[in-house]
Amino acid sequence: MDVKTTIRSIPGWPIEGVVFRDLTTLMQNPQAYGQSCDILYERYKDQDVGKIVGIDARGFVFGAVLAYKLGIGFVPVRKKGKLPWNTIEETYTLEYGEDTLEIHEDAVEKGEKVVIVDDLIATGGTIGATVKLVKKLGADIVECAFVVELPELKGREQIQGCNVFAITEFDGE
Amino acid sequence: MDVKTTIRSIPGWPIEGVVFRDLTTLMQNPQAYGQSCDILYERYKDQDVGKIVGIDARGFVFGAVLAYKLGIGFVPVRKKGKLPWNTIEETYTLEYGEDTLEIHEDAVEKGEKVVIVDDLIATGGTIGATVKLVKKLGADIVECAFVVELPELKGREQIQGCNVFAITEFDGE
Repeated sequence: MDVKTTIRSIPGWPIEGVVFRDLTTLMQNPQAYGQSCDILYERYKDQDVGKIVGIDARGFVFGAVLAYKLGIGFVPVRKKGKLPWNTIEETYTLEYGEDTLEIHEDAVEKGEKVVIVDDLIATGGTIGATVKLVKKLGADIVECAFVVELPELKGREQIQGCNVFAITEFDGE
Repeated sequence: MDVKTTIRSIPGWPIEGVVFRDLTTLMQNPQAYGQSCDILYERYKDQDVGKIVGIDARGFVFGAVLAYKLGIGFVPVRKKGKLPWNTIEETYTLEYGEDTLEIHEDAVEKGEKVVIVDDLIATGGTIGATVKLVKKLGADIVECAFVVELPELKGREQIQGCNVFAITEFDGE
């Protein structure tokens, strides 16, 4: 099946002029959800990946399954204040204001191969900060993987030098 | 292995007097994480479950794998303002103040059998609100499943009449 057809588009959310791509309808659909997870697994199963880094919170829904299927650990990157142990943090700019992400200092090892997973790449602020966090800890980023890419918003420019994979995209639709 | 041994205990977080049970060390451990997911799968694989409801955000890490393995859909219950479509909401009391959870109106069907998953049950505020949301939509709750229970905090009292399962517990330790 084409998983893209299960994504719900919501015009005017969260603000006027934006069409939000709602992946909850994909997650609720067993075929689309299973197939999305399987595509990621097939892509990384022979890459000797050591950890999956998932981004708070929708990235967890896809990254957790990938980690489980690969038989490796799962690492959450979270909004500031949610992780209880020693962290490093990275602040990034939003359209209005800024936000901060954290990762535990012991989450990944130097030289460990990781795949970073989020549901969607738009302007790239979140993934840009996450890449910086993972690099600070010395891990080796195999790829940044998404279910959906919005190419018009040029998120890839925030993570130049990283491989990027997306299962599907919405481009000028 | 005993998955409990992989959980990190952090005294004094988020406030003095509390010992926080940090499951990120369990998630990072492939054996402990895999085994936790497998225990949940074995428990529900023959129960004709239609959806897994995961609670924002650590509940996603375990609930998503359970949904994938059962070949069914995953539904996120989220903090207010995160879900883009039509929602119902439920407010619950915290130690200081209150918080509100939401679920999409079309997330589960009337009479559908669901398992609700979170990482931990403490005082039960979050799971109590989630049970109310799922019942409002008319679904049938097979069980509320957790990796960790803190029995001293009597969370089960918030969801009387519901079956409760926890993989492990910390009781007066």
